[in-house]
Amino acid sequence: MYELGVVYRNIQRADRESADALAAFGSATVHEAMGRVGLLKPYMRPIYPGTKVSGTAVTVLLQPGDNWMMHVAAEQIQPGDVVVAAVTADCTDGYFGDLLATSFMARGARALVIDAGVRDVAVLQEMGFPVWSKAISSKGTIKATLGSVNIPVVCAGMMVSPGDVIVADDDGVVCVPAVRAVQTLDAARKRESLEGEKRAKLAAGVLGLDMYNMREPLAKAGLRYID
Amino acid sequence: MYELGVVYRNIQRADRESADALAAFGSATVHEAMGRVGLLKPYMRPIYPGTKVSGTAVTVLLQPGDNWMMHVAAEQIQPGDVVVAAVTADCTDGYFGDLLATSFMARGARALVIDAGVRDVAVLQEMGFPVWSKAISSKGTIKATLGSVNIPVVCAGMMVSPGDVIVADDDGVVCVPAVRAVQTLDAARKRESLEGEKRAKLAAGVLGLDMYNMREPLAKAGLRYID
Amino acid sequence: MYELGVVYRNIQRADRESADALAAFGSATVHEAMGRVGLLKPYMRPIYPGTKVSGTAVTVLLQPGDNWMMHVAAEQIQPGDVVVAAVTADCTDGYFGDLLATSFMARGARALVIDAGVRDVAVLQEMGFPVWSKAISSKGTIKATLGSVNIPVVCAGMMVSPGDVIVADDDGVVCVPAVRAVQTLDAARKRESLEGEKRAKLAAGVLGLDMYNMREPLAKAGLRYID
Amino acid sequence: MYELGVVYRNIQRADRESADALAAFGSATVHEAMGRVGLLKPYMRPIYPGTKVSGTAVTVLLQPGDNWMMHVAAEQIQPGDVVVAAVTADCTDGYFGDLLATSFMARGARALVIDAGVRDVAVLQEMGFPVWSKAISSKGTIKATLGSVNIPVVCAGMMVSPGDVIVADDDGVVCVPAVRAVQTLDAARKRESLEGEKRAKLAAGVLGLDMYNMREPLAKAGLRYID
Amino acid sequence: MYELGVVYRNIQRADRESADALAAFGSATVHEAMGRVGLLKPYMRPIYPGTKVSGTAVTVLLQPGDNWMMHVAAEQIQPGDVVVAAVTADCTDGYFGDLLATSFMARGARALVIDAGVRDVAVLQEMGFPVWSKAISSKGTIKATLGSVNIPVVCAGMMVSPGDVIVADDDGVVCVPAVRAVQTLDAARKRESLEGEKRAKLAAGVLGLDMYNMREPLAKAGLRYID
Amino acid sequence: MYELGVVYRNIQRADRESADALAAFGSATVHEAMGRVGLLKPYMRPIYPGTKVSGTAVTVLLQPGDNWMMHVAAEQIQPGDVVVAAVTADCTDGYFGDLLATSFMARGARALVIDAGVRDVAVLQEMGFPVWSKAISSKGTIKATLGSVNIPVVCAGMMVSPGDVIVADDDGVVCVPAVRAVQTLDAARKRESLEGEKRAKLAAGVLGLDMYNMREPLAKAGLRYID
Repeated sequence: MYELGVVYRNIQRADRESADALAAFGSATVHEAMGRVGLLKPYMRPIYPGTKVSGTAVTVLLQPGDNWMMHVAAEQIQPGDVVVAAVTADCTDGYFGDLLATSFMARGARALVIDAGVRDVAVLQEMGFPVWSKAISSKGTIKATLGSVNIPVVCAGMMVSPGDVIVADDDGVVCVPAVRAVQTLDAARKRESLEGEKRAKLAAGVLGLDMYNMREPLAKAGLRYID
Repeated sequence: MYELGVVYRNIQRADRESADALAAFGSATVHEAMGRVGLLKPYMRPIYPGTKVSGTAVTVLLQPGDNWMMHVAAEQIQPGDVVVAAVTADCTDGYFGDLLATSFMARGARALVIDAGVRDVAVLQEMGFPVWSKAISSKGTIKATLGSVNIPVVCAGMMVSPGDVIVADDDGVVCVPAVRAVQTLDAARKRESLEGEKRAKLAAGVLGLDMYNMREPLAKAGLRYID
Repeated sequence: MYELGVVYRNIQRADRESADALAAFGSATVHEAMGRVGLLKPYMRPIYPGTKVSGTAVTVLLQPGDNWMMHVAAEQIQPGDVVVAAVTADCTDGYFGDLLATSFMARGARALVIDAGVRDVAVLQEMGFPVWSKAISSKGTIKATLGSVNIPVVCAGMMVSPGDVIVADDDGVVCVPAVRAVQTLDAARKRESLEGEKRAKLAAGVLGLDMYNMREPLAKAGLRYID
Repeated sequence: MYELGVVYRNIQRADRESADALAAFGSATVHEAMGRVGLLKPYMRPIYPGTKVSGTAVTVLLQPGDNWMMHVAAEQIQPGDVVVAAVTADCTDGYFGDLLATSFMARGARALVIDAGVRDVAVLQEMGFPVWSKAISSKGTIKATLGSVNIPVVCAGMMVSPGDVIVADDDGVVCVPAVRAVQTLDAARKRESLEGEKRAKLAAGVLGLDMYNMREPLAKAGLRYID
Repeated sequence: MYELGVVYRNIQRADRESADALAAFGSATVHEAMGRVGLLKPYMRPIYPGTKVSGTAVTVLLQPGDNWMMHVAAEQIQPGDVVVAAVTADCTDGYFGDLLATSFMARGARALVIDAGVRDVAVLQEMGFPVWSKAISSKGTIKATLGSVNIPVVCAGMMVSPGDVIVADDDGVVCVPAVRAVQTLDAARKRESLEGEKRAKLAAGVLGLDMYNMREPLAKAGLRYID
Repeated sequence: MYELGVVYRNIQRADRESADALAAFGSATVHEAMGRVGLLKPYMRPIYPGTKVSGTAVTVLLQPGDNWMMHVAAEQIQPGDVVVAAVTADCTDGYFGDLLATSFMARGARALVIDAGVRDVAVLQEMGFPVWSKAISSKGTIKATLGSVNIPVVCAGMMVSPGDVIVADDDGVVCVPAVRAVQTLDAARKRESLEGEKRAKLAAGVLGLDMYNMREPLAKAGLRYID
């Protein structure tokens, strides 16, 4: 249950270097590096393809059809942040457009992740401000009811706390708790360093069956080949 | 309830100048200028990104899996029209492809808005004929049952009357009643003239909190800042 | 019901020439040429636009959240194949990424059609490996439970047998049974040869109403024009 | 597009006798008697089974999360009315519970049809007040924004005008335009008088194939029997 | 891909005794007894609760919005059959009502399983004819296009062949291939005979942790208890 | 993000008297008494109608298709608890049936709230064990992967901590944080004491318009009556 009407100004952001470095690994590798937890539901999609972002979460809890708290959140943004917006009920309205994006960019925000809709998507692409959302909608919002800023929120089924690292790309959005940012970066690096060699082998025609030594466990599990 | 088997030939189209000019403002601004009504459901998406259209509606009511009336509608198209197609039941079939698009373009149609599916989407993009639809599907249709042309229809949850103005872009589709076209254009112009200045301020780092004088009403509503 | 834990090594692939040639006609024309059957559900979408593929099906049945059999399937791929993957229960996990794609390409696969999710979509596009899927998800899979390879499967509502021809493009995915590949190619050719002339007429402003002689049947069906 | 902030007090209700009599025939027969138009989308379901209702529509247009206009609508109810509620955007909130039901019943309303959610469903069943809705939800609503009463609305995809006849049962909800109520009742009666005899024949083992003389048209259409 | 326009008259029905006996075990136990395959998608729901049925499948392939083949299927029904109906495209229309149910019952059918909609559900419940369907809808169908009877079909994601055993109850619908009916009955019996004893132990307060000896494997997997 | 493989044995349950007393007020009243927060998404439905429950939450985090942790959770149940089950990914499998229900009841559990599927629903109703779930499915689960017990979880979009009060009835499911149980009970009581009088007035024909003094604010908001 949410605490309404509060703004936490002093949040503990994750280690900056890790938060910055994770983007390069992508959401799939980071998700694996985390032990396969932390993924937002796959209905969260980029509004335009081809971007990769990571940063520290500033969270905002919105009311249905009301984006008042987005303006409150703007003031809490620091360079390197990603705004993560949740809503107290399902809503596809367009909470965010080019004006708010201009303000967020001026504050140093790297992206928006919102469990609702956005609009002005053609302009947002021109501006180069990446957004992951559940919907696109022309329907604007009002400014009448309080939510909160920088409380833990549930966004697309995942708990996100202020200061956590958000990693987002064309494959989806992952949340890395602040306290695990450094070790996750380390795990992601290890994971990726192994992939280059594998890729070369597979490209040369070596089968995963052999490279991963799967033939024996498959036979043990009872796999039968029929000619 | 729909009147079936009729074609209204003489429809009252909205003021041409307004119908043409509204595209530039986009569906989000027009939706606001209308008082936040008139939006089709956000599942209506462009089949390819990057187009902006406005025009006067020629409406067509289709039967499930049957596109016979699309050919009847073609004859009623005048330059500057947008065809708005509804179906008497939920259907994702591909009612429209490159041949019909060729015909519609030859008649002067600017776009199709259809609460169903279309196909040949790669060719439609090459031809530059914009479509907003609920689905993309290879499944063609038959020509067996009558619907109607130029009756009021419900398309994606919104009533559209023949002659109304349709404004569509990457953010969605809005319907402006013919009698309100001129005043909506006026309202959209006013709305947009205010945005340039705001954008400059926000880009310079001014917060919406200050620009819109929100701090006092937020405090009044009980917003608390916690350090 | 599915037979689990088996791999059929010798499958009867459709006529190669037909399997190769069908791509050019596209899924919509092939679907019509088949008598309007064979289409997978329209929720199957390309992960990036602009590709057209046809090939012979290697089928794989997967377990939810488990891509072990993808590696088993890789060995059964021959140049010109399209891998068709079904799952025993609804699942959106990312079963397939750039490593498996490298392996599939090395074996000569032309594409993947999967009734589940994939990941590394930006890299897959760079590699030029086309995928039609139900979802995109960073969520990886484990390797623990047997499915089968080259048994008949239900993929997105359609039965696909190993060796059938798969035709996929931006409009969707069609399955042509191996025994009908030659006649379907023939029917597709006939269908398309008629389209060029029609397109020219329609572009010149001839109405479908006249070109297809629809006025009389429409009147017979009771269509009334009202001025 | 909707006119907001208005209440039409004098509406032309459909012929009372027809409006009352249609319930007995049920939504399926009435839908057929109408020529197979007028049906609300099948996601509209009764909150408890076993009721059959018909009456004249009092319409109300609501704002998302706001049931203020329900109270305005209550005053416009006359005995024999069915309230039909639409919302300007998708919403599943619980707009209606036992207090409003008490008020509606006191005014003579027979049922509510609402393209949104309701609550207190156990109490509503005890009270015997039937509701057809899209959702059930504990989430209440506020009273802040105007909609309208007795304007034509789109409810679950269907246009409903004040005074139209609503027929609802376990199969769904149908809208009969006021001007067609008498003829629809007549058509429904004719339709049903034929069913008793058919039912007796089918119960005795006569096949529809023979009773409806389908064998010849099926053979003509090419149906083949294979032993 | 489907063969259209054919009726297979001589189908090999599963062992009668097994087909009759499986109902008592219910769909969940039968699904387990099959090795956890054979389940139709869980959107298939009974139109009224509290029934348990098993029988041999007569299959029918329908066209969207067209129930002509239901009458053809009726003639192929033998006592103890369950009709399994698939459609060539997604459709929620009401294909089946009290008249067809009267005919099916007269022929000895035990139930209908249909991947589409039905109507007259209150009457069907009074008649005691069980139906599992995807939807309930007043919308009737026409009789114009051929499908097939007694070909293998895909119903709610599962392949069903004529003569297979269908087991359906409040938990869902399972298909048991005819050749596996006897062994599945045997496996179901074994499974159930073990359950009585377990139930008694659990009712007495014994924990599954102890009854199934889970504590050691849980500890091995790394489970930690924190006080 | 979730901590996997842990069981917290000592949780702080909400005030018992409040936890017990809240059921009588129902989820709608409790939701209002909480300030309109705390509601799980409305897709959570009772598997049979007519029950009202409240109790203290024992939480369990499950893996997709795996109910191992349900047995671990059983041991942590105390009389008066309601088990709240979340899954790390979307899943409709039947995690829970009559055997687990027997065990849960023996431990004193009052109900299960699960963001997934259950089975044996007819038996569960006979046993009188209430369940709120997202799905019903015959599909069983395996016991292979660790989740956690008594950590904070996200269930149907809402954060639930162990010890919180769960209130569930036909209208839905609400979570009351343990620390707010007493004050929420107090607020619920106040709320309900006002309702009896209102109900009597409304039943006597007094309009909400007058009882709530809405006429003036409606007029102020611009409502126009048209005769």
